[in-house]
Amino acid sequence: MIGLAENLGSEGSTLIERAMATIRQRIAARALTPGSRLPSIRAFAKTMQVSKSTIVEAYERLAAEGVIQSRLGSGFYVSGPLAPLSLAEIGPKLDRDVDPLWISRQSLEAGPEILKPGCGWLPASWMPDAGLRRALRTLSRAGNAALADYDTPLGLAPLRQLLSRRMAEHGIEASPDQIMLTESGTQAIDLLCRFLIEPGDTVLVDDPCYFNFHALLRAHRAKVVGVPYTPTGPDIDLFAQALETHRPRLYITNSAIHNPTGATLSPVVAHRLLKLAEPAGLTIIEDDIFADFEQAPAPRLAAFDGLDRVVHIGSFSKALSASVRCGFIAAPHGWIEGLTDLKIATSFGGGHLSAELVLAMLKDGSYRKHMEALKARLSQVMGETSARLKALGILPWLEPQAGMFLWCRLPDGIDAADIARKALAQKVVLAPGNAFSLSQASGGYLRFNVAQSTDARIFKSLERAMQGR
Amino acid sequence: MIGLAENLGSEGSTLIERAMATIRQRIAARALTPGSRLPSIRAFAKTMQVSKSTIVEAYERLAAEGVIQSRLGSGFYVSGPLAPLSLAEIGPKLDRDVDPLWISRQSLEAGPEILKPGCGWLPASWMPDAGLRRALRTLSRAGNAALADYDTPLGLAPLRQLLSRRMAEHGIEASPDQIMLTESGTQAIDLLCRFLIEPGDTVLVDDPCYFNFHALLRAHRAKVVGVPYTPTGPDIDLFAQALETHRPRLYITNSAIHNPTGATLSPVVAHRLLKLAEPAGLTIIEDDIFADFEQAPAPRLAAFDGLDRVVHIGSFSKALSASVRCGFIAAPHGWIEGLTDLKIATSFGGGHLSAELVLAMLKDGSYRKHMEALKARLSQVMGETSARLKALGILPWLEPQAGMFLWCRLPDGIDAADIARKALAQKVVLAPGNAFSLSQASGGYLRFNVAQSTDARIFKSLERAMQGR
Repeated sequence: MIGLAENLGSEGSTLIERAMATIRQRIAARALTPGSRLPSIRAFAKTMQVSKSTIVEAYERLAAEGVIQSRLGSGFYVSGPLAPLSLAEIGPKLDRDVDPLWISRQSLEAGPEILKPGCGWLPASWMPDAGLRRALRTLSRAGNAALADYDTPLGLAPLRQLLSRRMAEHGIEASPDQIMLTESGTQAIDLLCRFLIEPGDTVLVDDPCYFNFHALLRAHRAKVVGVPYTPTGPDIDLFAQALETHRPRLYITNSAIHNPTGATLSPVVAHRLLKLAEPAGLTIIEDDIFADFEQAPAPRLAAFDGLDRVVHIGSFSKALSASVRCGFIAAPHGWIEGLTDLKIATSFGGGHLSAELVLAMLKDGSYRKHMEALKARLSQVMGETSARLKALGILPWLEPQAGMFLWCRLPDGIDAADIARKALAQKVVLAPGNAFSLSQASGGYLRFNVAQSTDARIFKSLERAMQGR
Repeated sequence: MIGLAENLGSEGSTLIERAMATIRQRIAARALTPGSRLPSIRAFAKTMQVSKSTIVEAYERLAAEGVIQSRLGSGFYVSGPLAPLSLAEIGPKLDRDVDPLWISRQSLEAGPEILKPGCGWLPASWMPDAGLRRALRTLSRAGNAALADYDTPLGLAPLRQLLSRRMAEHGIEASPDQIMLTESGTQAIDLLCRFLIEPGDTVLVDDPCYFNFHALLRAHRAKVVGVPYTPTGPDIDLFAQALETHRPRLYITNSAIHNPTGATLSPVVAHRLLKLAEPAGLTIIEDDIFADFEQAPAPRLAAFDGLDRVVHIGSFSKALSASVRCGFIAAPHGWIEGLTDLKIATSFGGGHLSAELVLAMLKDGSYRKHMEALKARLSQVMGETSARLKALGILPWLEPQAGMFLWCRLPDGIDAADIARKALAQKVVLAPGNAFSLSQASGGYLRFNVAQSTDARIFKSLERAMQGR
C-alpha cells in the first residue's frame, strides 16, 4: 500500500502537500467556490492516485489552516464566503465579545427570556402600539395603490412634506424634493456611503460611536479614523489634526443624543466643526434617529450648514416601530437624482406600505402625547438606573439630557468585555465599550439602555460578574 | 480696467484659464465637493485679483464642459455627485430612451392618467387586495413584538419554514436556515453581488434580460457580458464561449418566465449550463420572482444543482404586493453567516411587519384561488393583446406559457426607442427592447405587460407612432 509508505517518510509528506496544493489551486481558480463541497476523500484519492489517508491528512491540514471546514457527516467545504467581501475578513480582527456584528446579533436574536440592557432600542411594550394598531386598521381601508403598488422613486410625497415641516422645527431647511425615503436609517447611511466613498477612502467617526458604523464602513472597505468624543462633541483639536493627517472624505456622527454617550453637540463645537469641514472638502452625515427623544432642542449641523455639506438622516425605528422599516435622507439638491438612481438600482421601490403607516402614525394626534409620556418615563428610569449602577461603583460618564443611553465607567481594573461574557452566560446581553471604540480605548465602559434595565436581575448579574463569579 | 484688456488678448485668455484651473484644482482636492456652490463671481474675482467678467467667462466655460452647473438665481454649483459612484457616469452612455434607470423611473413616477404597457408589474387593482386587507386587520391585533420590534437576523422563522416547503414544491431543497429574508428581490441580488463580486469582476447576463440587472451591476462596477437568449434558455455554445473568454464570476438569470421574453429554460439547457458552470467555478443567481405565475412547472437550476453553486432568490412584489417589501435568498449553507452579517451592517433589521403580512397572506386560503384566477385572466389578456399587436404587425417572439410579458418584434425598419419616445408624448410608457439588451441588438423589440395593455388607446398610440405621427 502506498498509504503506509506515505505516513512514514518524506515521500508521503510530499504527496500530502501536492494534494493540498491542488485544492488551493482549485480554490484560487474558483473551480471550488467558498461554501462548496470538496470532492469526497475516496474520489479525490482516486483523482490524485494516492491513498485515502493522504487525502484525509491533506484535508485536515487545510482545515487547520482555515482554508476548508469539515461539517459533521457531510464532508469538507471551502471556507468562505468569497473572502474579500466577508465582513469578518475585513478590518481589524476583533475579539468576538466586542465585535459590532456579534453584539448586534446577540440583541436581535435574543428571545423574550433574555435581558438585554445592552440593546439599542426600546422594549416593544414601550412603543406606541395603540397608534400602530390604528394605523394598520386605517391602512386596511386604503386604496389599492397604497396596499399593492410601488412607491414613487423619492417616496410618499405627503410623508416627505411632513418630514420637511418637522425638520424645519429643528431649524433644518429641507424642501420635500430634497428628501428621499429609504428602508431604514442604516440603509440611508449605506446608500450615502455608496454614493460618496470608494474602497480605501477615509471616513471619520466618533470614538466611541454607534457600533454598526464600524460594521457598515467595513462593508464599504473604508479606512476608518476615530476622533475622541467629549461631552460637547468631537475633540475639535484632534478633529482638525485628523483632517490634516488623513484627508477624510466623510464624517459620520450624531449631533443630538449621541450614541453611545448620550452627549449633545454644543453650538460652539458645531460651528468650529463646520468651519474646519469647508476648506477640507469634508462631507458630514448627521444621523439623527433619536430626534424625537430630545427634551431641549440641540444644535444640528444640518441647520447651521443649510444642507450644503451636511446630509441629514433619520428613521422611525426608535420612536415608532422597528418592525415598520422607514428612514430618510435630506441631502443637497444636486445629490437627489444620483441617490434616487442608486436606490432604484439596488432596491427598486421603497417601502410604500411602511411609509403610509409612518405617515398615519405621525399624523395621529396621540403620537406627540405618547412621546411626551415616553420622555418622562425614560427620564425617570434614567435616574433609577443611574442610582442602581452608582451603587455598584459603575459611574455614568455624563448625565444625558435625554434618550435611553447611559455610558458608564466600570470600577478601575474591571474589563467590560469580560463582564459582558460572564453576564451573557447568565442570559444578560451587555454592550461592552470597545464595541463602540475604534481605538479600543473604552474597555472600561458599558452602554446601558435604561428602558431595558428595569429588571433587578441585571444588577445582581453585574455584581456577580464584577466579583469574578 | 483689466477686464477690458482681458477680453481682447491672449493675456485675458490666460487669466480665464488660470481661474478655470483654480476651480478644477479645488474640485480635485475636494475643497469644492459635488453639489456645493462655487464662490460668488464677485468674491472669486477678488480672490483671483481679476475682473468679474474674467470669472464669468471662466465659469461659463467650465459649465460648458459640464464641470459645474449654473442654477437660476443661485449661482454656480459643482456638477456631481462624486462622479465615480454616480450611476450615470458608470458604464456605457445610453440614449435616455433606453436607459434602464430612466425606464424604471417612467413607470414608477407615472400617475394614474398614464398608460404603462411597458411597466413590469400588475395594476394594483389586479392584486389580492381582500387578502391584503385581511392581513392588515389581523396584524392590527398581533402582539407588540410583531408590530414594533426588529425581526431576527434571518427573518421571521414561520415564513422561512413556509418558503422552504414552497420551494420543495419546485424541487428545491432549502432548509429554513438556508433562507434569509431581504427587503426585496432586488435587495437580495444586491446583497449577493456585494457578497460575491468585486469591482471589475465579470458577470454574465442574458441578452435580453431584466433591465434593472444592468443598473444594479453598474452600481457594483462589474464588467457585464451578455449571452444571447433563445426560447429555451441562453445560447449554450455562446455561453461556453463566454465562460472561456471572460472567466465570469457570476451569472444572473430567470429560469421560469424569463423577463423580458417570457421564455422557459428547458431541462437539457439547464443541465448543460450547470455542467459548464462547475469547472468554470461559476456562481449562478436564479431570480425566480415570477414563480407563482407558472402554469406548468419549469425546471429550476437550484433544483438540479441542490443549492451548491446556484443561489435562488424570490420576492412577493409581483404576486402579492409591491407596497409590502419582502424578498428572500436561499443560499448554500456556508454563505448564510456572511450574508447575515452583510444584511445587519447595511440595513440592520429586516422588515418584520412586511414579513408578518406576507406570511398572513400566503397562509390565507384565498391566495391560491386568487393566483389561479389571476393566471386565467392573464392567459386571456395575453391572447387578446397578442391578437391586437399582430393586427399592427407587431409579432410576439414566442407565446409564453405564462406570466405577464410579451416580447414583440416591430415591423422591419421601425425603431423601438423612437416609438417609445413618441408614445410617451401621448402619455403611454413603453419598454423599448434595447433597455433590456447589453449588445443593443433589440432595437426592433418592445416588451408588453399584457395586464397593463387592456386600454385601446395604447394600440391607437402605437399605430400613430409607427406611422411616424
